[in-house]
Amino acid sequence: MSETRPLRVAMIGYGFMGAAHSVGWRQAPRVFELPAAVEMAVVTGRNAEAVADAAAHWGWQESATDWRAVIARDDIDIVDIVTPGDSHAEIAIAALEAGKHVLCEKPLANTVAEAEAMADAASRAAAHGVRSMVGFTYRRVPAVTFLRDLIAQGAVGRIAQVRAAYRQDWLVDPEMPLAWRLQKEHAGSGALGDIGAHIIDMTQFVTGLDVTAVSGVLDTIVRERPLQGSGSGLSGTAAEGYGEVTVDDVAIFTGRLSTGALVSFEATRFATGRKNALTLEVSGDKGALRFELEDLNTLWFYDRTAPAETQGFTRILVTEAQHPYVAAWWPAGHMLGYEHGFSHQVVDLITAIAEGTDPHPSFAEGLSVQRVLDAVEQSSERGSAWVPVGASVPASR
Amino acid sequence: MSETRPLRVAMIGYGFMGAAHSVGWRQAPRVFELPAAVEMAVVTGRNAEAVADAAAHWGWQESATDWRAVIARDDIDIVDIVTPGDSHAEIAIAALEAGKHVLCEKPLANTVAEAEAMADAASRAAAHGVRSMVGFTYRRVPAVTFLRDLIAQGAVGRIAQVRAAYRQDWLVDPEMPLAWRLQKEHAGSGALGDIGAHIIDMTQFVTGLDVTAVSGVLDTIVRERPLQGSGSGLSGTAAEGYGEVTVDDVAIFTGRLSTGALVSFEATRFATGRKNALTLEVSGDKGALRFELEDLNTLWFYDRTAPAETQGFTRILVTEAQHPYVAAWWPAGHMLGYEHGFSHQVVDLITAIAEGTDPHPSFAEGLSVQRVLDAVEQSSERGSAWVPVGASVPASR
Amino acid sequence: MSETRPLRVAMIGYGFMGAAHSVGWRQAPRVFELPAAVEMAVVTGRNAEAVADAAAHWGWQESATDWRAVIARDDIDIVDIVTPGDSHAEIAIAALEAGKHVLCEKPLANTVAEAEAMADAASRAAAHGVRSMVGFTYRRVPAVTFLRDLIAQGAVGRIAQVRAAYRQDWLVDPEMPLAWRLQKEHAGSGALGDIGAHIIDMTQFVTGLDVTAVSGVLDTIVRERPLQGSGSGLSGTAAEGYGEVTVDDVAIFTGRLSTGALVSFEATRFATGRKNALTLEVSGDKGALRFELEDLNTLWFYDRTAPAETQGFTRILVTEAQHPYVAAWWPAGHMLGYEHGFSHQVVDLITAIAEGTDPHPSFAEGLSVQRVLDAVEQSSERGSAWVPVGASVPASR
Amino acid sequence: MSETRPLRVAMIGYGFMGAAHSVGWRQAPRVFELPAAVEMAVVTGRNAEAVADAAAHWGWQESATDWRAVIARDDIDIVDIVTPGDSHAEIAIAALEAGKHVLCEKPLANTVAEAEAMADAASRAAAHGVRSMVGFTYRRVPAVTFLRDLIAQGAVGRIAQVRAAYRQDWLVDPEMPLAWRLQKEHAGSGALGDIGAHIIDMTQFVTGLDVTAVSGVLDTIVRERPLQGSGSGLSGTAAEGYGEVTVDDVAIFTGRLSTGALVSFEATRFATGRKNALTLEVSGDKGALRFELEDLNTLWFYDRTAPAETQGFTRILVTEAQHPYVAAWWPAGHMLGYEHGFSHQVVDLITAIAEGTDPHPSFAEGLSVQRVLDAVEQSSERGSAWVPVGASVPASR
Repeated sequence: MSETRPLRVAMIGYGFMGAAHSVGWRQAPRVFELPAAVEMAVVTGRNAEAVADAAAHWGWQESATDWRAVIARDDIDIVDIVTPGDSHAEIAIAALEAGKHVLCEKPLANTVAEAEAMADAASRAAAHGVRSMVGFTYRRVPAVTFLRDLIAQGAVGRIAQVRAAYRQDWLVDPEMPLAWRLQKEHAGSGALGDIGAHIIDMTQFVTGLDVTAVSGVLDTIVRERPLQGSGSGLSGTAAEGYGEVTVDDVAIFTGRLSTGALVSFEATRFATGRKNALTLEVSGDKGALRFELEDLNTLWFYDRTAPAETQGFTRILVTEAQHPYVAAWWPAGHMLGYEHGFSHQVVDLITAIAEGTDPHPSFAEGLSVQRVLDAVEQSSERGSAWVPVGASVPASR
Repeated sequence: MSETRPLRVAMIGYGFMGAAHSVGWRQAPRVFELPAAVEMAVVTGRNAEAVADAAAHWGWQESATDWRAVIARDDIDIVDIVTPGDSHAEIAIAALEAGKHVLCEKPLANTVAEAEAMADAASRAAAHGVRSMVGFTYRRVPAVTFLRDLIAQGAVGRIAQVRAAYRQDWLVDPEMPLAWRLQKEHAGSGALGDIGAHIIDMTQFVTGLDVTAVSGVLDTIVRERPLQGSGSGLSGTAAEGYGEVTVDDVAIFTGRLSTGALVSFEATRFATGRKNALTLEVSGDKGALRFELEDLNTLWFYDRTAPAETQGFTRILVTEAQHPYVAAWWPAGHMLGYEHGFSHQVVDLITAIAEGTDPHPSFAEGLSVQRVLDAVEQSSERGSAWVPVGASVPASR
Repeated sequence: MSETRPLRVAMIGYGFMGAAHSVGWRQAPRVFELPAAVEMAVVTGRNAEAVADAAAHWGWQESATDWRAVIARDDIDIVDIVTPGDSHAEIAIAALEAGKHVLCEKPLANTVAEAEAMADAASRAAAHGVRSMVGFTYRRVPAVTFLRDLIAQGAVGRIAQVRAAYRQDWLVDPEMPLAWRLQKEHAGSGALGDIGAHIIDMTQFVTGLDVTAVSGVLDTIVRERPLQGSGSGLSGTAAEGYGEVTVDDVAIFTGRLSTGALVSFEATRFATGRKNALTLEVSGDKGALRFELEDLNTLWFYDRTAPAETQGFTRILVTEAQHPYVAAWWPAGHMLGYEHGFSHQVVDLITAIAEGTDPHPSFAEGLSVQRVLDAVEQSSERGSAWVPVGASVPASR
Repeated sequence: MSETRPLRVAMIGYGFMGAAHSVGWRQAPRVFELPAAVEMAVVTGRNAEAVADAAAHWGWQESATDWRAVIARDDIDIVDIVTPGDSHAEIAIAALEAGKHVLCEKPLANTVAEAEAMADAASRAAAHGVRSMVGFTYRRVPAVTFLRDLIAQGAVGRIAQVRAAYRQDWLVDPEMPLAWRLQKEHAGSGALGDIGAHIIDMTQFVTGLDVTAVSGVLDTIVRERPLQGSGSGLSGTAAEGYGEVTVDDVAIFTGRLSTGALVSFEATRFATGRKNALTLEVSGDKGALRFELEDLNTLWFYDRTAPAETQGFTRILVTEAQHPYVAAWWPAGHMLGYEHGFSHQVVDLITAIAEGTDPHPSFAEGLSVQRVLDAVEQSSERGSAWVPVGASVPASR
């Protein structure tokens, strides 16, 4: 991969994540000094008209309907996958085998088997300098990256425990229709796979430790919902009759890290009033760190090595030039938002490609999250018995 | 029991809880209009000199060393038990059989068997107009009482889930000596029984629902600590050598309420920077309520029936005259603190005695907490398998 | 004054402040180890029946109606004045001349002339070992005392500016009746004298600096209110007709400290939703400190000397044994409330008497607050022109 | 103006504001459905090489050095002025006279006279369908727009008072060099004009009321600073010697609204630990609203018409689809940041041009802010005497 010509990107899919990824591809080269130029070459989807509209609106040069043909093109360097999880494996493996760098939205796949095949393909491709990355963008919220850095520097000391939750409330209304996301055959999983995956990855990322075993329970609070009529997604209108919800609404589980420390996890779509309440607190013998996604420019740090009488949680505004990713944006105190992580993801992927290194999170890390999700489901089916997570993978963390 | 002469109280024990109860007995009659006068008659302890000092300092009329003799006195109406948990059963049953009203500090006992005997004794005594009450004073923080009232009025609708935690950090330092509280033979339990009991009781109290089954894990993070030298309590100095910690440092468990709703519980002494962080959030289809003990004059209420665009968590300062217990204290915006709950406990106990009703929490409710604690221990020993809580008791909730 | 017999207190007045002072006198000797015993001897008021009730309820040994006779008694050592401000001077001067130690509720007086006479009397009495103290109890909220200590230790460096406000909302309703507090002939002043006095004293106390000049404006937002019918105080019912509000509802003023630094002050009873929102922030070249009375166990400290990347406001829970006054109360994380300051006031007064030192705030300090209040009124009358505060007094700060 | 060809923009200037405006021009057409296409045609600056770099980096089609020539071009429809304030009048008037729509960064000008000339030019141009707008982008933070809407709907009732502050700390360090922003001949004003202008505009915008008179004081806390050596802007290194700071560091002033209500204003660069702390609270007889820029997705609303016992400040997350501007972005709970206001500004300007209406804030509104700034300076020079603001202008508010 040379810097002499731009890196050209093909995005497969164009839903909500397509919009977010497009912002990343559009903004990153204009805000950061990237080591290579980037071009938004082509966006791919099944509906020719709709994808053409998306291309025009989001600024992609072309649209296409056959992702296989797109992957085969010589002028494409990077394949960005934002389709639903059940198609990730097929597309990603094909792209990697075609020698394209791959950015794959989370979760890596809908099953462990698919994820394993993807990790294998990524490993083989890496031997030829082809890079792959999973889209756990919350790693790249500056406060989260900084939290990880502080832990790596020893700021919390030996980790005693972690408390992680991701709470939303969009299923509280029992009359919300039975969208595809609530049907296992389409979505694979409910709160666990969608938002639980984030807190598992974030925990492993910031601590640098694997979740090695879990015990937990999945539950479906509203088991029947109105069938969905016209419209799509979560905003569809109701049709007549009711159907069964076949995924979990809530997942409560406990994990054990490789050091033996416990982690309490909760992922729910029934936390009334909580819109996007990812919270993470890491406690150690030297200090503690706390992050809340609904206040994403802030990091709370408790330093047990400070003088006793002035110890407390310090509210750090992670908007200073010395904080990760921040210098390219605005002066201190000027807030970043949700989509900035997608720019940071582009920065790190392009940098890795240009420098010939492997970016994180690797597919192996995505697989490790998938294995934890799978172990939680097994535990729930087995009366919350502890289930080992399975073979650990070498992490690029 | 007549109102023609004061109700005279004997307090058995005089540790930290003795100080707090003394404040309650001293303040309640001076701040509230009680239906009967109260006299702090006698405080009892094994060390004659120390208990005499306590009596003089805290304002008890006399001190004594033989609690049996004190219970036998005709001029004593109420026995207030603040000794360690392993002596609760013997004292409380004796007092009830002697026809004395009993206030017993939580946890009700160290074992389910003891608690059952106590509940039986309380039930028999109640038939003769003798009242009994367990000292879960956090029920009487005005914000908690008000939270319960709001739920009873339907403010959260059908409860979907509860999230409860009690987090402290006083064991984070691995060089903290091996106090008696860390030895099972003396303390019975660790974080689970000490602070976990509070969040179990509070959950059952505010929801009006029983925890019917649990799955959980106990853990001891620092398994060996320096032997304790001179001094007492948690502030003792270290002697030479190390001993084994035989109680839990952290308890993470999930409960199922009688309606099927899940509750996530966490009790820990290793949450670095958290001093007394009891937090409770109840989510339902009409709203949510949140309480934090470190901000105890505040209640957060999310009303899903409000106009959509102005929905949010409302920070209610529970210091208005119309809020529970508050009118007797100060004007709006003047904060109450930790010990006020002990005055409210006295108010409710004296009122129940004067009015001939049974106060809450009853010994039966104390027993139900004990059964949950016991089920958690069993679950932890059985690999986090779900354990039913056992026979439910008629609650005075 | 000897420690061989108890110090006996006479309290003159028995309104809201009487209740609060009674808690202080009752609690302090039971919680702290005082250097002298204290007895609540007599409470005095004009209505014999009402004051007798107050005595019985609050635990004073006797009641009386003639304060002059009480002051003349040999068995009285301390006179505690909680009457309205217009009687402070007469009572305090008489008590001091009778050789009694005096605790006088704030504001020291209704006029500068009265306050000067009182400060003179206090000065003369001090020469004979008679102590005097003004009841600015917020100085003795542990977080405020600690804030002062941190400034004294250099934690904020050279003070650049101060931002102080005291905001309440009990006059927002235009139909609230015309209570005596809203009539100048009775109350002397409105928001300025009542709550503005607190933030002036707190600013001078924590910075150790005098306010030397002010510019400001007073305003009355609702100028006519329903005449008050039966009932008393703020809760009275309305009679027919309307009367004029003759005190200020809001006072906004700027002060200059002796170092030249500016202070922005705001005192208002029209801050909708704010119940008791005293806030103070001191900014200096080494750091900043912030206090909020509605969260009174907390102090926020920004340390500019910390590493740049982890700077932020630290939320210090001022409930540790090493914090001022706290060790006598409860373990860490157990909250104190509004009335604890009244106990601390007793501790410091009794200690000063026993040790033969002058307690703070002195009458001279109370006078200095009065002079600032007076200068603000003058400035408001003179179109917000800057008015010097007048002769500074030697502060015991 | 027709929708048949894109609206082509010329941006004059390319500093910090140039970066922010570029984001707005780039993002708005990709996120919102604009009624007309937009092209980033040309960016103009004095240094040919630097402005060419800026054009390439930010995505402008061309760069140029002669703004007069650019304004004269037929293919330019909109002129966006982001130069320092002393050049605004000349450029804006020329552009308006050339029939170009003008977006001018705040403050409108450095003097009232300039601002008057600009408002006149805008008024003349408007008669020919040429639009003009001042860049007070904080009006377009969704929470601020929503706050204004709520007030317009009567949510706070009659406004009793306003409390507004803008506090930063980047001058706390006395060794920070004497940048051009600290010299009156270049910057015109200090904290007052830079950040004070924002809170004046926001107050007038959200209340719909004019500030009619002011009393205030300006102060310079550090009067001498090291001369600036190499480098530019605030990050320059120090040269030898010291120079005088000739603008204000802090401005504290009180305003009176047209209804008579008072507003307390504070603008400072010496609030240690405060990075970008714009706060605004509007209190009325029906409720109150509070906004904080460092938590910009949140609005606090106190509703006095709610049941008394559950009144409190409600924390509204302004990220729902029904909130202003939000639907085009992300799902509920996904945060927006600083630069989103610049996209919203583009949306509103383009919509106004396409629909043939006048956007806000008009130049007349910008002039009214300038007049308030001028009156504050006069008041400060005249010992804080009250100064009327001068002729009010018809606002498009």
